Amino acid sequence: MDCVFCAIVAGRLPAYLLHEEEDFLVLLDIHPLRPGHLLVISRTHAPFLHDLPVPARERLLALAERLTRALYAAGAGIEGVNLMLNDGPLANQHVPHLHLHLVPRRRGDLAALLWRALTRFLPLGRQRLHVRLVAEAELLRGVLRQEA
Amino acid sequence: MDCVFCAIVAGRLPAYLLHEEEDFLVLLDIHPLRPGHLLVISRTHAPFLHDLPVPARERLLALAERLTRALYAAGAGIEGVNLMLNDGPLANQHVPHLHLHLVPRRRGDLAALLWRALTRFLPLGRQRLHVRLVAEAELLRGVLRQEA
Repeated sequence: MDCVFCAIVAGRLPAYLLHEEEDFLVLLDIHPLRPGHLLVISRTHAPFLHDLPVPARERLLALAERLTRALYAAGAGIEGVNLMLNDGPLANQHVPHLHLHLVPRRRGDLAALLWRALTRFLPLGRQRLHVRLVAEAELLRGVLRQEA
Repeated sequence: MDCVFCAIVAGRLPAYLLHEEEDFLVLLDIHPLRPGHLLVISRTHAPFLHDLPVPARERLLALAERLTRALYAAGAGIEGVNLMLNDGPLANQHVPHLHLHLVPRRRGDLAALLWRALTRFLPLGRQRLHVRLVAEAELLRGVLRQEA
């Protein structure tokens, strides 16, 4: 089994883990489009939305809604969130295991977002990014604990 | 009330309507990013995901999943779908009334998608587009009827 998200679910790969529940894990994206870019990944290896078990499908947007509230509450000017689910490799789904992106948006950040979309997979500044992700994970875990 | 989606729900504005149910209407986007670009709009005027009533929120992905299957079944090379929900005006939500985009994806269409993202609001070729949307709506209504 060489699915990177299955390996994270099984604890065989590290992750910036924020939250776990019955059907899903919440992580920071390691190639963030914007600071605070979250991923909700299913515990089940469901490539497409139609592979996700029905109870999980019913609960996914409740979790997503809770996460948008946590992002808005985290401050730092977050006033919008792009939720994206890419169904299938032809839709730019880079890991064939269901995941929902939540990309926080701030005023005037569209140019930075588009630039990052072009450059996010380049192996530049990984150590500095790691330090930032550790701090973001700590902050967001705190907000989620308070909101629970 | 000057919300364009509320006016469509109330029947005061025309739309390329594909499907109606208790909580949602399904339309073709009139500024499609790709052929077959669908919108699921809520009957309720909910600006943010946290404004959507819970029963509707639980049912939204079931409808989205049914629509992805319809798009794959419609043929024309559709093998992926981007599902996007823009939460808030700062996340490029152009109509402040909850809507889920479903953008069908075909092999090698990324350049066309990006080009269209830059040009979709220009008032060019509207009559030709109207003819295409009428045909797409007819095709997709037929697929949805068969899958029901």
